[in-house]
Amino acid sequence: MQEVSETLRRQGRRVGLVPTMGYLHEGHLSLVRKAKEMADVVVVSIFVNPTQFGPKEDFGRYPRDFERDKALLAQESTDITFFPEVSEMYPEGYSTYVEVRGLGDHLCGLQREGHFVGVATVVAKLFNIVRPHVAIFGEKDYQQLKIIERMARDLNMGVDVVGFPIVREPDGLAMSSRNVYLSADERASALLIQKAIKRVEEAFRGGERKAATLSEEARSVLGSHEGVAVEYVALCDAETLDDLQEIDKRALMAVAVRIGKTRLIDNTTLTES
Amino acid sequence: MQEVSETLRRQGRRVGLVPTMGYLHEGHLSLVRKAKEMADVVVVSIFVNPTQFGPKEDFGRYPRDFERDKALLAQESTDITFFPEVSEMYPEGYSTYVEVRGLGDHLCGLQREGHFVGVATVVAKLFNIVRPHVAIFGEKDYQQLKIIERMARDLNMGVDVVGFPIVREPDGLAMSSRNVYLSADERASALLIQKAIKRVEEAFRGGERKAATLSEEARSVLGSHEGVAVEYVALCDAETLDDLQEIDKRALMAVAVRIGKTRLIDNTTLTES
Repeated sequence: MQEVSETLRRQGRRVGLVPTMGYLHEGHLSLVRKAKEMADVVVVSIFVNPTQFGPKEDFGRYPRDFERDKALLAQESTDITFFPEVSEMYPEGYSTYVEVRGLGDHLCGLQREGHFVGVATVVAKLFNIVRPHVAIFGEKDYQQLKIIERMARDLNMGVDVVGFPIVREPDGLAMSSRNVYLSADERASALLIQKAIKRVEEAFRGGERKAATLSEEARSVLGSHEGVAVEYVALCDAETLDDLQEIDKRALMAVAVRIGKTRLIDNTTLTES
Repeated sequence: MQEVSETLRRQGRRVGLVPTMGYLHEGHLSLVRKAKEMADVVVVSIFVNPTQFGPKEDFGRYPRDFERDKALLAQESTDITFFPEVSEMYPEGYSTYVEVRGLGDHLCGLQREGHFVGVATVVAKLFNIVRPHVAIFGEKDYQQLKIIERMARDLNMGVDVVGFPIVREPDGLAMSSRNVYLSADERASALLIQKAIKRVEEAFRGGERKAATLSEEARSVLGSHEGVAVEYVALCDAETLDDLQEIDKRALMAVAVRIGKTRLIDNTTLTES
């Protein structure tokens, strides 16, 4: 992959990367299409990265279907699919980790210890292997996007990190490979996430600026169903991810819930229009 | 620098990097000559990296003489000198750090908390900015060399990390920018380091394989002068840096001492001939 990419760069061709953990859905495919707009050659990586899963998380049962993924990518005429083995990415004696301090100490970073070190590390590796000019990430994983933007800038990686808006199912549920875990009942409860976000957006548009009140609005929706356990509802600075008391700058409203065994996240940004 | 290097790479030219903190001596210049053998274009970076100095260390008083360095590099016909400002390398909000676990928990890593995170981080940045095919490091900083080798491999940096043997003054003292700190008396005491190393090499050649005994030999030399405070004498696996009881594989004998306020390090490798 490194040699292929070096050759492409020498030819002056612009390389775009869409890093994924596979089990592709329309969200991923939108990133691929965006990458095609921004680059001459699009590389999609498929790698379920063990270092970003905690010991009690779902690494083992994370959904995988490489044949289906390949077929979907062929439909999008992806140029290159890069799918390394765990033993290639983390050989015996592997010991280097990348940490973005500060941005990781919020939201999902508090619940998922070591998660963002795993994310930053694997993305650093993918950037060095694929050497893209531009890399596209979904905004559903908003904190991840911010951490990778910061890492790429701080470490002078020369990669333009681009976020792409959340792609949703027709009923509003944010697309996620983990949605496949949901039973029919759970799938119905999951709609409360979008409902909570809409409620907050509405209150914000109505003039509410107190984070505590907006958060309470979301929690009242999410708490209305006993199958939904709220992990966090956060209102924070959209750049630093620091908690806000008053929404007096561009803010992120982010939610993480557990529905049965499945952890789902979603978010929206709140800005003065 | 990144653009220059990208252009050179496109032209198919091999880029060599010699990262330094300036105040160049013959040791550095030997690295430059080695780089010239191994690359078409040699970049020497000069950057006194604040993140690898502890709060009580000598960042502020570390010797600097950029004009002299430039003249020395001109004599060696260095192609490019890269000398960024601290504010360019670590702008406001900087927060990304690279850690090589395991290898840092030995030798200097125990005395200099955070030192090797600072080293790995700045070298990762320099590698991404200069994009060298090959980078040359002195073996005086043996642990640093091992950590950078490991980082480059683990993060798929595509940089060939090459070590170069210690260059010594005629009387045997390892060259170091910090030697300038030494008073005449201290300079004389510093020779005990080389004497201790020689004593250990001799005992090893004489068949001694017990690390404790070899270490005792070194300490008996270093302890013979009250101006010399031993920070460590280590006998360890030359690859993993794990302490050895018996020298039954290629080993590193490494020494750190304080002479007055000056910290000096030196080392040798012990191998069956």
